[in-house]
Amino acid sequence: MIINGSTQIWGINALVSALRSLRLQSLQDRQCLVHPPKMPSRGQLQQIVENLGAALFPNRLGLPDLPDEAIDYYVGHTLEQVLRELNRQVTLELQFKNRLQSASQDLQSQSSAITQGFAEQLPKIRSLLDSDIQAAYEGDPAASSVDEVLVCYPGVAAIMHHRIAHALYQLGAPLVARIVAEIAHSATGIDIHPGAQIGDHFFLDHGTGVVIGETAVIGRRVRIYQAVTLGAKRFQKDDNGLLVKGNARHPIVEDEVVIYAGATILGRITIGRGSTIGGNVWLTHDVLPGSHVTQGQTRTESFIAGGGI
Amino acid sequence: MIINGSTQIWGINALVSALRSLRLQSLQDRQCLVHPPKMPSRGQLQQIVENLGAALFPNRLGLPDLPDEAIDYYVGHTLEQVLRELNRQVTLELQFKNRLQSASQDLQSQSSAITQGFAEQLPKIRSLLDSDIQAAYEGDPAASSVDEVLVCYPGVAAIMHHRIAHALYQLGAPLVARIVAEIAHSATGIDIHPGAQIGDHFFLDHGTGVVIGETAVIGRRVRIYQAVTLGAKRFQKDDNGLLVKGNARHPIVEDEVVIYAGATILGRITIGRGSTIGGNVWLTHDVLPGSHVTQGQTRTESFIAGGGI
Amino acid sequence: MIINGSTQIWGINALVSALRSLRLQSLQDRQCLVHPPKMPSRGQLQQIVENLGAALFPNRLGLPDLPDEAIDYYVGHTLEQVLRELNRQVTLELQFKNRLQSASQDLQSQSSAITQGFAEQLPKIRSLLDSDIQAAYEGDPAASSVDEVLVCYPGVAAIMHHRIAHALYQLGAPLVARIVAEIAHSATGIDIHPGAQIGDHFFLDHGTGVVIGETAVIGRRVRIYQAVTLGAKRFQKDDNGLLVKGNARHPIVEDEVVIYAGATILGRITIGRGSTIGGNVWLTHDVLPGSHVTQGQTRTESFIAGGGI
Amino acid sequence: MIINGSTQIWGINALVSALRSLRLQSLQDRQCLVHPPKMPSRGQLQQIVENLGAALFPNRLGLPDLPDEAIDYYVGHTLEQVLRELNRQVTLELQFKNRLQSASQDLQSQSSAITQGFAEQLPKIRSLLDSDIQAAYEGDPAASSVDEVLVCYPGVAAIMHHRIAHALYQLGAPLVARIVAEIAHSATGIDIHPGAQIGDHFFLDHGTGVVIGETAVIGRRVRIYQAVTLGAKRFQKDDNGLLVKGNARHPIVEDEVVIYAGATILGRITIGRGSTIGGNVWLTHDVLPGSHVTQGQTRTESFIAGGGI
Amino acid sequence: MIINGSTQIWGINALVSALRSLRLQSLQDRQCLVHPPKMPSRGQLQQIVENLGAALFPNRLGLPDLPDEAIDYYVGHTLEQVLRELNRQVTLELQFKNRLQSASQDLQSQSSAITQGFAEQLPKIRSLLDSDIQAAYEGDPAASSVDEVLVCYPGVAAIMHHRIAHALYQLGAPLVARIVAEIAHSATGIDIHPGAQIGDHFFLDHGTGVVIGETAVIGRRVRIYQAVTLGAKRFQKDDNGLLVKGNARHPIVEDEVVIYAGATILGRITIGRGSTIGGNVWLTHDVLPGSHVTQGQTRTESFIAGGGI
Amino acid sequence: MIINGSTQIWGINALVSALRSLRLQSLQDRQCLVHPPKMPSRGQLQQIVENLGAALFPNRLGLPDLPDEAIDYYVGHTLEQVLRELNRQVTLELQFKNRLQSASQDLQSQSSAITQGFAEQLPKIRSLLDSDIQAAYEGDPAASSVDEVLVCYPGVAAIMHHRIAHALYQLGAPLVARIVAEIAHSATGIDIHPGAQIGDHFFLDHGTGVVIGETAVIGRRVRIYQAVTLGAKRFQKDDNGLLVKGNARHPIVEDEVVIYAGATILGRITIGRGSTIGGNVWLTHDVLPGSHVTQGQTRTESFIAGGGI
Repeated sequence: MIINGSTQIWGINALVSALRSLRLQSLQDRQCLVHPPKMPSRGQLQQIVENLGAALFPNRLGLPDLPDEAIDYYVGHTLEQVLRELNRQVTLELQFKNRLQSASQDLQSQSSAITQGFAEQLPKIRSLLDSDIQAAYEGDPAASSVDEVLVCYPGVAAIMHHRIAHALYQLGAPLVARIVAEIAHSATGIDIHPGAQIGDHFFLDHGTGVVIGETAVIGRRVRIYQAVTLGAKRFQKDDNGLLVKGNARHPIVEDEVVIYAGATILGRITIGRGSTIGGNVWLTHDVLPGSHVTQGQTRTESFIAGGGI
Repeated sequence: MIINGSTQIWGINALVSALRSLRLQSLQDRQCLVHPPKMPSRGQLQQIVENLGAALFPNRLGLPDLPDEAIDYYVGHTLEQVLRELNRQVTLELQFKNRLQSASQDLQSQSSAITQGFAEQLPKIRSLLDSDIQAAYEGDPAASSVDEVLVCYPGVAAIMHHRIAHALYQLGAPLVARIVAEIAHSATGIDIHPGAQIGDHFFLDHGTGVVIGETAVIGRRVRIYQAVTLGAKRFQKDDNGLLVKGNARHPIVEDEVVIYAGATILGRITIGRGSTIGGNVWLTHDVLPGSHVTQGQTRTESFIAGGGI
Repeated sequence: MIINGSTQIWGINALVSALRSLRLQSLQDRQCLVHPPKMPSRGQLQQIVENLGAALFPNRLGLPDLPDEAIDYYVGHTLEQVLRELNRQVTLELQFKNRLQSASQDLQSQSSAITQGFAEQLPKIRSLLDSDIQAAYEGDPAASSVDEVLVCYPGVAAIMHHRIAHALYQLGAPLVARIVAEIAHSATGIDIHPGAQIGDHFFLDHGTGVVIGETAVIGRRVRIYQAVTLGAKRFQKDDNGLLVKGNARHPIVEDEVVIYAGATILGRITIGRGSTIGGNVWLTHDVLPGSHVTQGQTRTESFIAGGGI
Repeated sequence: MIINGSTQIWGINALVSALRSLRLQSLQDRQCLVHPPKMPSRGQLQQIVENLGAALFPNRLGLPDLPDEAIDYYVGHTLEQVLRELNRQVTLELQFKNRLQSASQDLQSQSSAITQGFAEQLPKIRSLLDSDIQAAYEGDPAASSVDEVLVCYPGVAAIMHHRIAHALYQLGAPLVARIVAEIAHSATGIDIHPGAQIGDHFFLDHGTGVVIGETAVIGRRVRIYQAVTLGAKRFQKDDNGLLVKGNARHPIVEDEVVIYAGATILGRITIGRGSTIGGNVWLTHDVLPGSHVTQGQTRTESFIAGGGI
Repeated sequence: MIINGSTQIWGINALVSALRSLRLQSLQDRQCLVHPPKMPSRGQLQQIVENLGAALFPNRLGLPDLPDEAIDYYVGHTLEQVLRELNRQVTLELQFKNRLQSASQDLQSQSSAITQGFAEQLPKIRSLLDSDIQAAYEGDPAASSVDEVLVCYPGVAAIMHHRIAHALYQLGAPLVARIVAEIAHSATGIDIHPGAQIGDHFFLDHGTGVVIGETAVIGRRVRIYQAVTLGAKRFQKDDNGLLVKGNARHPIVEDEVVIYAGATILGRITIGRGSTIGGNVWLTHDVLPGSHVTQGQTRTESFIAGGGI
Repeated sequence: MIINGSTQIWGINALVSALRSLRLQSLQDRQCLVHPPKMPSRGQLQQIVENLGAALFPNRLGLPDLPDEAIDYYVGHTLEQVLRELNRQVTLELQFKNRLQSASQDLQSQSSAITQGFAEQLPKIRSLLDSDIQAAYEGDPAASSVDEVLVCYPGVAAIMHHRIAHALYQLGAPLVARIVAEIAHSATGIDIHPGAQIGDHFFLDHGTGVVIGETAVIGRRVRIYQAVTLGAKRFQKDDNGLLVKGNARHPIVEDEVVIYAGATILGRITIGRGSTIGGNVWLTHDVLPGSHVTQGQTRTESFIAGGGI
């Protein structure tokens, strides 16, 4: 009891005590006997992704009025800041994974290697994003310039977050990657797991409600509309009834496939090159290259309301 | 006219005057003859929910570096601040409902009783959330720790908002509750009406596009995927053609049911315990316990585009 | 090389150099030989829309405690600020479109004319929004007051953004309009192209996942639920294989139509007055006035899992 | 003890306990048996004074780009906001003075009367400030425009704070007034007690270190340089040895007097009209009109360092 | 009257009207018939000076953790930002001086020339500041490192502001320069007119209350303590009784002079090289090189209080 | 050269290069061959002192509306945060002093010991401040409550900063202490070196321009007015001509002494108990207990300007 005899309005003392018990119980249930280490910060990562965007597209996502003599200074300064902060977040992930309160020399080396590896991929990420922007410009009759696409399209924001998250996922920072993916999910309604592999010239139109699973593989020049799911059909369990983690369970979509709004494609199936999947289709089996998949029959009947016969 | 003869660029004077007329007309149409009272503030409630999360999970959603000797101080301080501010917002709701410009003694007592009742439910809310987090961890092969689930999963954010909003709804603050629900809706794309009753171990995966109606009842250990609707089939009208408000019109989902992406379940029907509802299913009738509901036939046909035979 | 011989941790110099090459290459590919002009700012436009809301609904979206003697001052001051800043953003769009680094006299006149035209439409926009709010209040059994509808409902936020964006689109600021639309899309999951024409008393319930295309025409007293698409069926290409831009390709929805959740309506078809389109319906042909369109047959089969016969 | 057995790093528990004892002891010593009421806020008052400056000089201290059609809206809006907030601060002072936790009806009337009285003086304050600015412009060879004087001169900032504080002091809000005076003191090094009476066309040059006491009376067109003190000579005590508060104890400075840097003038003496007081003079007796007071003899001797003779 | 018949609490309408009359009267009195142009912004200039400090001393006043590979990027980026913003402020000064609402081509060229000239002086300013810091370190027994001097000493902050302000003053931006000087005055209590010429290795200890006038000339390795005034003795007036502006009226202080606290030195006199001026001395005549000037006699008498003789 | 051939507006490249040379030269001159470590942060320390004030006086300088049940939680939480951050700043000072880039185990222990020692002194500091506030209340006829004194008086702010700084100085963190002292100096114009020893019931009235040196010793119940200097008379140099640092060189002021405005007291002299030192006095020799020291003769002569005889 903090203050013996002080008047209690909300009963803070009792609440604090009850919540403490629950907290300790929860730690005990999970056999967390040591103080749990800090996790990477969503707020910091949001800033990091914004600054990476600024470094990659300084005139559009950074400081648009920069004169020529200043752009490289801006890019270099921004990169140094953002890589240093990213390195801190990666270190936190490694500490968290290893349940360490502070970073050992070895762990710092791992973290630096991941950040360094990420830095090296930035030019490739910029190239891929250029191809994605081009694809959106060419694929949408409403788009009037590539700059508009870069600045306005939620699908472009989502793929930018994904290409960053995927690089981090592959380099060994899956938690940081996941947080980056959820930042995009919250802003755009597009949920791409950082594990998903996606080729160049990828175009997500409208995008709200799209879900792309961890082991999905998407080829080049693929176009996907809103509310499409590339999901798992069922989850495998092991002999103990626990989920098997990490096995390939999401679709493979080959090059130049188009998937219209609301299609649901489940399981480790392959959509062959150049196929078109119609809106609202439910698909759980392989599709040959060049197929057009649509719904099997007219799904609606209309009648004049209140009409007799 | 404010300034006779001053140069007008945008015609502010005329605009102000036109908007004033519309404002007064609108008040008159709604027979609001007195100055309308202030409503609860979305910005304040956003802060309140964040701080409640911090008090409930101080190491993860509050200040992660807190040493043991400081956690209870932090929790106690945060609770006092957040309950005081919540009480203010509840008072605003009661004033608004009663069209009062200031809070009477009686109204302040009502507000305090609601806030006090809410405070008492916080330990129960924390327990429920612990069960929800556990369910998400166990139900998603991509989840690697319960902490990741708490920090990253939009479904967990949505259910945290809902459990807070539902307690407030039941205690008599439905407007505050609704605003809390819409904060989650905006951040996650998950729209759960605060009136919905939801049991423990609830897991919403991906979540974008989920809609759960006011009178829905959901049992324990239920799992729901993205774009699922638990809605009303039709709205009842009274003899005057006005909507009947508040009657039971949304589904009952019993324990251990799984509902896959895109399923639409409408009306006061019951999904029996342990059933599985397949993706994109459209369901408007009761389902026996242990049922598997899927779509009736293959919905797609594929052909080789342009291919002859 | 900036600093010869300085230690390189992340290899900033090499990165800066690689990104510069990509940037120059990208400009060259797009034949942008001059420094690209600044675009309108999403952050500024977000502020502008908030302030327009405050000027239109000063008691609810502005400063709710304003006494009578102060409201007009507040409205007038807010309008002047917001129109001035909007004019700046429109000027940026015109500069961007004409690839100009600074605004000529003529371009400034065009921008002022657009802003002036927009200002004159504000009273009409307020009237339309009053009708939309009324429609939501009457159409939702869970709504308990028109103020709650204005403050809480994402559909109302989306239509407010749309009515502003549509006015700007028509006056010749389509890029500014598009950014306004995407602000709403991100906050609500509702994606309405600023070109869409929408009549009064429009009600979007829940709204997540709704997509309404550029050339859609929607009548009066229409009600639309979540995840509805009013899209294009296919894109026309010209003789060079390039998309034809701007032709009418989205549905016409006549007065008093209701479209339930998940319906997908594609192409330049007409949904006749007073029709009802059921949930998840896929519709690509005209519908007579007064029709009820639902799915053709029961789409589900249920069985007792693991049950014998 | 909050957490029995939790590790103590800084000994927070013991510190909290020790500080609580001192706090309670201090309240007991001062016979404060009830919870002490909140005081006016320095932060709020700083904002209030800035906004008053903006309302008085909208083009220079407010929003300089305002077009003619917008100025009055800005001024009216700013005034309403600032008077409402000032009224809150005055209410806090009255509650504090009367040791009340909340404001009675009567106290609110008093507060409104003070704020109303203050509002009525604003035009007079603007006129006085115009005269002060004119005096500074005419009195300083380095001043090149009256606008420069308004924006740059710390003496003008100090007199603006003083004229506001003095009005509040006279109307019955001496604590609010004092806080306003200290805000200026901190920013400029000029310490004018809000009780001091100061005529028009007052010019304080440089100003650092100036001290003007509570009962000082300064006429019209007076000029004072840095580090001048208009102080009390000694403090009267009553029969109990306690200081007598409020009696006239500071100098009277008649019209058109000039006082140079570092002069110290103490006690209820009168400096006659048109006199000049030299730098560093120490003065404790009356001075006839038209006098020139300087130091009595050369105060320095110089010699060549290390010089023989 | 804005709203006929609306209830008036503070009488905003009447106040707005009264203040408008005063504003128009004041403009008329000063024969300002056109809308007065915007002045340079104190807030912006405060930011500019901070950023210049950061560019000059990146490790101490900028971002202290910068690795070697990043410093030049940071400096270059900061310089570009700060020079661009400074150029804007200089443009505002030139517009203000010429009473222009917008910047002509010619005026923009003038502004660029001033900013360019300032940029070229930055290395010299850094060298001078290095000498000032060294002088402070050597001259104060309490200083333990040059870094401490740079970060802590108000005299160093004041001279940094002065060297920046003086460069701008000489280049033709006296108003911007004056605002920079007043920023330092407010923060440190040290008031140096930007016109003053000050040699290298200048050390101001404590500094509060120091005043140095517009035409003062100070040599190399001079040391000045708190509350010293280098002022004008009297102001010359022309035949019309108006002050003559700009003539030499402040002291010349030669190299290696020390002036102790509180000394007042007035008029265009010369303090010869290597002289020492004692504390509180009042000096209005030339002093030969190598002089020691102190007060002429013991200025105090002490007695035992209440003691008889 | 960063960008060969890019247009140079301000000549950033050349400036960056020139500043780099100067920076390297300066490091070389000071024989700083390694990258200089980060110093404690003034911004952080400003926050720390504010939070210490809040923990010491939670109702006045913290959160004034705290109910009884919440105060200790607030104090405990605030203390933990502030001591942790203070520990970080002390660590930075120790790293800086030892020219280390990171903190060794041993250095962290030293830092913790300093912070721990400081924490233990907090109750004593609160007691001393209570006595100082009481002294101000009793000593100023214009003070109407102790709360007003605590919130308004710059002298109280200065002594609060000093008591904190002095504790840190004595415990071995002189640089952190110095920065705390300069924060007060900038806000109040009162410059007290953290080394100065000051007894209880200390009252500084007005305070602007007060300077108290490092080795000054001030007894109990001492009162000091504005612009008083307790300084060194001269600085001792060693055989190499370098200043001797740290020797006793400032005055000793015994209990119950009063020193009026502008007095300058220099050297290691003793002002005996109960003495009064008059305004503007210049004092460099010991004063017996109970003395009254005033100026030796009338220092002014007055005459009627332009008057005959």
